[in-house]
Amino acid sequence: MSGPRRPPAAENTQQGIRRRNLSLVLHTVADHGPLSRAAVAGRIGLTRAAVSSLVDELIRTGLLTDLGLEQSGTVGRPGSALSLSDRGPCGIGAEVGVDHLAAVAVDLRGRVRARATAEVDNRGRPAGTVLAELAALIDRVGGTARAEGLRPAGVAVAVPGLVARDTHTVVRAPNLGWREVDLGAHLPYGPALTVDNEANLGALAELWLEGVPGDFVHVSAEIGIGAAVVVEGRLLRGTHGFAGELGHVPVRPEGPRCPCGGRGCLEQYAGEEALLRAAGLTAKGRPEGLLRARADEGDPAARRALRAAGTALGIALAGTVNLLDPRAIVLGGSLARLAPWLLPSLERELTRRTPQDGTPALTVSRLGTEGPLLGAAHSVIRTVLDDPTGHRGGASTRYSS
Amino acid sequence: MSGPRRPPAAENTQQGIRRRNLSLVLHTVADHGPLSRAAVAGRIGLTRAAVSSLVDELIRTGLLTDLGLEQSGTVGRPGSALSLSDRGPCGIGAEVGVDHLAAVAVDLRGRVRARATAEVDNRGRPAGTVLAELAALIDRVGGTARAEGLRPAGVAVAVPGLVARDTHTVVRAPNLGWREVDLGAHLPYGPALTVDNEANLGALAELWLEGVPGDFVHVSAEIGIGAAVVVEGRLLRGTHGFAGELGHVPVRPEGPRCPCGGRGCLEQYAGEEALLRAAGLTAKGRPEGLLRARADEGDPAARRALRAAGTALGIALAGTVNLLDPRAIVLGGSLARLAPWLLPSLERELTRRTPQDGTPALTVSRLGTEGPLLGAAHSVIRTVLDDPTGHRGGASTRYSS
Repeated sequence: MSGPRRPPAAENTQQGIRRRNLSLVLHTVADHGPLSRAAVAGRIGLTRAAVSSLVDELIRTGLLTDLGLEQSGTVGRPGSALSLSDRGPCGIGAEVGVDHLAAVAVDLRGRVRARATAEVDNRGRPAGTVLAELAALIDRVGGTARAEGLRPAGVAVAVPGLVARDTHTVVRAPNLGWREVDLGAHLPYGPALTVDNEANLGALAELWLEGVPGDFVHVSAEIGIGAAVVVEGRLLRGTHGFAGELGHVPVRPEGPRCPCGGRGCLEQYAGEEALLRAAGLTAKGRPEGLLRARADEGDPAARRALRAAGTALGIALAGTVNLLDPRAIVLGGSLARLAPWLLPSLERELTRRTPQDGTPALTVSRLGTEGPLLGAAHSVIRTVLDDPTGHRGGASTRYSS
Repeated sequence: MSGPRRPPAAENTQQGIRRRNLSLVLHTVADHGPLSRAAVAGRIGLTRAAVSSLVDELIRTGLLTDLGLEQSGTVGRPGSALSLSDRGPCGIGAEVGVDHLAAVAVDLRGRVRARATAEVDNRGRPAGTVLAELAALIDRVGGTARAEGLRPAGVAVAVPGLVARDTHTVVRAPNLGWREVDLGAHLPYGPALTVDNEANLGALAELWLEGVPGDFVHVSAEIGIGAAVVVEGRLLRGTHGFAGELGHVPVRPEGPRCPCGGRGCLEQYAGEEALLRAAGLTAKGRPEGLLRARADEGDPAARRALRAAGTALGIALAGTVNLLDPRAIVLGGSLARLAPWLLPSLERELTRRTPQDGTPALTVSRLGTEGPLLGAAHSVIRTVLDDPTGHRGGASTRYSS
């Protein structure tokens, strides 16, 4: 994208600059650590003295740890190696799935320190009941984390639906049967709570954990089909927070009616219900295992259904590529599992419908269905790294469970 | 989009901060001027003394003008009113159209100070010949601008084709018959030259001149159909610079073959050639006038052709809206002229295929075919406002025609 962003002049105060530099030190250690103070100074272009002062503050507030003297592998005196703290703040990620609930606690180093899950069919259950169970899982992993000396710095929840931008409100999640559910009214974490669409958080997990370069489209599916668009390392959310509704891109404009009001939407060809119907199967819970098994066994109907879904995905993604020119397309969620049977027809459509010199790389997520949950936990970690001063001292009071 | 951008620590030097604050003062006067020094200080949150020092530098380098004492309409002493200079740097915008060439000079206040155009059919002419004629127009408006005391600060050229990102190279412009044409080799303006797709520059004109809020899709057409995606006030360019190829979004996947290699692309239904064919017309030059006249007269074939084009545009844009959730869609270029006959069917498709609470505003550009040329000139003005220190003193040497 073009054009600079102009920070308000207030950002250029000594305080604003120090806050940015604290964040820069933390991110540098996160990306390249363990590092000595001198190595940090070298990387970010500040003096050794300035970096030492920043590091002292970050150690004092429990974000950095001094690991002690490191071996001298390079020129100069060996420095003391800095690492992110494994006893500082942690991020709690949680997920409302159609057929499961989950929560994890992840420390600043990115290690999963606690996990709790429940297999449960959430379709049509009252949101309050579902969210009370989710809160119990969150509190369980939060308790485990605290017992290990960690401080939960926030809770991020992944949901399979549209979330109104900058709110806690799920506008609709058709596969749960939710409309206008304010998670803030059910989950007692106050301002420490954030809520986001599962495809968005899955995309952020690819970006942060898998090193996918910052211009890509992440496609995922549970029952519906969602996508997330990442541009220059940032999520494109859209005016209302509704961007990424790949499932409702028209594939055949006179095709089958879709509950959204349109016709021939991608979901009518590649959504799980359509897939099962086309394969002549019925399944409870997650059907991708059954579909994959049938296709692997050579079942012609299953293979045909997956081939047709790949074609429809390729058509919708060809439009996406012509519009957005991403560097890569990542198939995530349950699509990752089905990829071997989707890819040939998907790639064929994509190749013939996009410019030869502009066809993006097509990859399959290694995180698969784990992506959204990990992305949620890491989104909390990122808020700590981006604004370390928001978490000094009183940090634990920000999380009020 | 989410997530902060971290400026490198070097940006936080005194020099970097002063440069940003100079830009902030200029943008404030550009957006809200004429303003007194005190009013500028109030708006940007710096002290009066700091602003005075910044203003002195901007007056010395010819970017701001002191208009003298303004009437006291508000509390306090009347201040001296500041305005952008009308004798400082100017931007040169130029355009290679399929059937015309044009150049304008625009001053910092946004006034067009010189203009030169030539009606000429550029289809299949050698790029060198076309660009030599364009250079002559550019030099003519540059000469007029200099005679009025302006300093051309750069030249931006709009082209109806794909431009490789951050280069001067038109990768392809099918309607001109160009492939891999490096405008830098033909236009003698060195680093003062920039080249961009006409839909991109048309979109920037809507953003900067018409005050369209910064999340929209701008659709334009000359022979082909192009679009530009603006997110949070910035152009989404894509990995290779190829974003916005709305004309090759599949509308009916088994539809007519498209020269791009796909089938049923939007251009096969709503491009000018398809429109003329469907209306049973042949036209030289710009056909939208003829089409519009026929439709206005009640010609059933012309109306049917435009209705079908509107339907196809609506289907392709429904996909776009589901993916990007823009605040508005702006019809520009020759589509603006045809809008009355396109809009009913376009709106119908868009409404039925996008969520009720997410349908964007659909507007028609008032700049029409003027947009890209004005956007080009203003893109030069913006580089001056964004980095005033790049244009001090030696500015005139940056433009070496």
